[in-house]
Amino acid sequence: MAELRNLISQGYIRVSGGKARLTAKGSRYAAELGLKALNDEKCVKYMIPSEFVPVLNEYKKLVKSRPNPVEKYDQGYIGDTDAILRLAFMYERGDLEGASVLILGDDDMMGIAFALTNLPKRILVLDIDKRIIEYEKKVAAEKDLRIEAKLYDASQPLDKSLRGKFDVFLTDPVETLEGIKVFLSRCASAIKANGAGYFGVTHLEASLKKWLEIEKMLISMNLVITDILRDFSIYPTKDNIGLAAHNYPITNMLKELGAGEIDSDFFRSSFFRVEAIDEPKPLIKGKVDIREAMYKDDESLVTSKIAGR
Amino acid sequence: MAELRNLISQGYIRVSGGKARLTAKGSRYAAELGLKALNDEKCVKYMIPSEFVPVLNEYKKLVKSRPNPVEKYDQGYIGDTDAILRLAFMYERGDLEGASVLILGDDDMMGIAFALTNLPKRILVLDIDKRIIEYEKKVAAEKDLRIEAKLYDASQPLDKSLRGKFDVFLTDPVETLEGIKVFLSRCASAIKANGAGYFGVTHLEASLKKWLEIEKMLISMNLVITDILRDFSIYPTKDNIGLAAHNYPITNMLKELGAGEIDSDFFRSSFFRVEAIDEPKPLIKGKVDIREAMYKDDESLVTSKIAGR
Repeated sequence: MAELRNLISQGYIRVSGGKARLTAKGSRYAAELGLKALNDEKCVKYMIPSEFVPVLNEYKKLVKSRPNPVEKYDQGYIGDTDAILRLAFMYERGDLEGASVLILGDDDMMGIAFALTNLPKRILVLDIDKRIIEYEKKVAAEKDLRIEAKLYDASQPLDKSLRGKFDVFLTDPVETLEGIKVFLSRCASAIKANGAGYFGVTHLEASLKKWLEIEKMLISMNLVITDILRDFSIYPTKDNIGLAAHNYPITNMLKELGAGEIDSDFFRSSFFRVEAIDEPKPLIKGKVDIREAMYKDDESLVTSKIAGR
Repeated sequence: MAELRNLISQGYIRVSGGKARLTAKGSRYAAELGLKALNDEKCVKYMIPSEFVPVLNEYKKLVKSRPNPVEKYDQGYIGDTDAILRLAFMYERGDLEGASVLILGDDDMMGIAFALTNLPKRILVLDIDKRIIEYEKKVAAEKDLRIEAKLYDASQPLDKSLRGKFDVFLTDPVETLEGIKVFLSRCASAIKANGAGYFGVTHLEASLKKWLEIEKMLISMNLVITDILRDFSIYPTKDNIGLAAHNYPITNMLKELGAGEIDSDFFRSSFFRVEAIDEPKPLIKGKVDIREAMYKDDESLVTSKIAGR
């Protein structure tokens, strides 16, 4: 924000019609520096393998009447295509076929996607939001899909019967350090020795300093990072931020800059894959007493409203 | 190997004509387990942005008479397309335009590729092999490319004049823990605060246990991992292993299995991107006295001959 304010006040860029553009002065300065216009053609592309297209089509139908995301639980869901991309990547890594999969927090309705492939041996969805649990149970019953879904609050230890029982976990942790430590610990305690795990982390709400702390946690839990796929999951703005009141820090920042409504899908996350070296060692084992600290910190720009801070 | 030997001796698979296939017994067993044939269509694809195709074409011509890789220095080079892919990814991340780039070990001739884009401010190639230095200097002189190239042995500390001077490093470290610690330390000492770095690590010669150690090193050097792209770089067998004597551990393993000559490009590496949080802290600062230990360990299957062990 400081950088943008500087560039605007010094006359290098100008914001109008919701877009920032170089002024004549800005263009001259860029030329002086020898800078060229950005070519934004990406060299890493994500595509759903044809085998999973029928799963995508069915998934789209089944999640149509899903519950709306609520701020209270830091919810927000990824696009349909990106949900199936996650599934495809997990399949590619050998983590889906014949696997017991634990999903901690499933506003993305991945339980339904996995079940549609008929590949996993067991699918367990844990969520704090009973609307999610009920929705997945209803779909499972109607479509005869093998999904278990249980109400679970991550501040409580994982039930003994679930510890060390899964081949793979998938979660989209809240992005406070406290929150992510709890989420990843619960997941780590759920998987077997040499099990694998997947989760998303953003750059918008997690600085690289926070990333470094997250990576430290992973390493100390015996989880090696094997893949990090940038911008693998995109959260469609219309389905998420648009549904809640527009009182997020980012909305106010944009107003200050003179930008209009958010019309791009700016909220993205990188997809991590980790694998346990021998036994995973969860950092947190017992009950934790965190409320606000779990969902909100100074880097929350989108997933928490200002009023709630 | 033990797993393969078991499957063969129990009659589940059979190796012939250089390929392993399920026997009738193996197929029945797979069906019993409910396993389906693998769909190996990838969901992550790497493509060179059209802007860099002319660079690729020119690069191909200029590296045609490059020196052959030698085992002594753990050499082996990536395919032309993959070299330009690395460049494209670095550009995409904002690490090429206007940047000072240090390349430590350049049998891949990335100095030439970078110079052809005219994007970096400075390109310095350091290599222990004077054939590489001379080749890049010759090409630079003939084609009027801005490449500095200097003889350098990574067991020696980096010259003072180079410390903290670069925005970005690129290296393809040897894969012993000692070797990688030295390479990454030299690179870390070369970059500025908040600088970035790129390097490749394989799964073939580096177990996940070793990956965990490498990641520990990175974290303790204040380098956060921002991207890990699996199989981003492929080493064409015909250009590499084919050129040296066929006396690698892997060749003998294949012989034992009854497989023929290696006819696929099996040697691949994941591409890491790291970024320094504030000042990078190299683990090694002074001179190190390592010879064999730098290039060879128990996980060296391809880059070292048995005789050299």
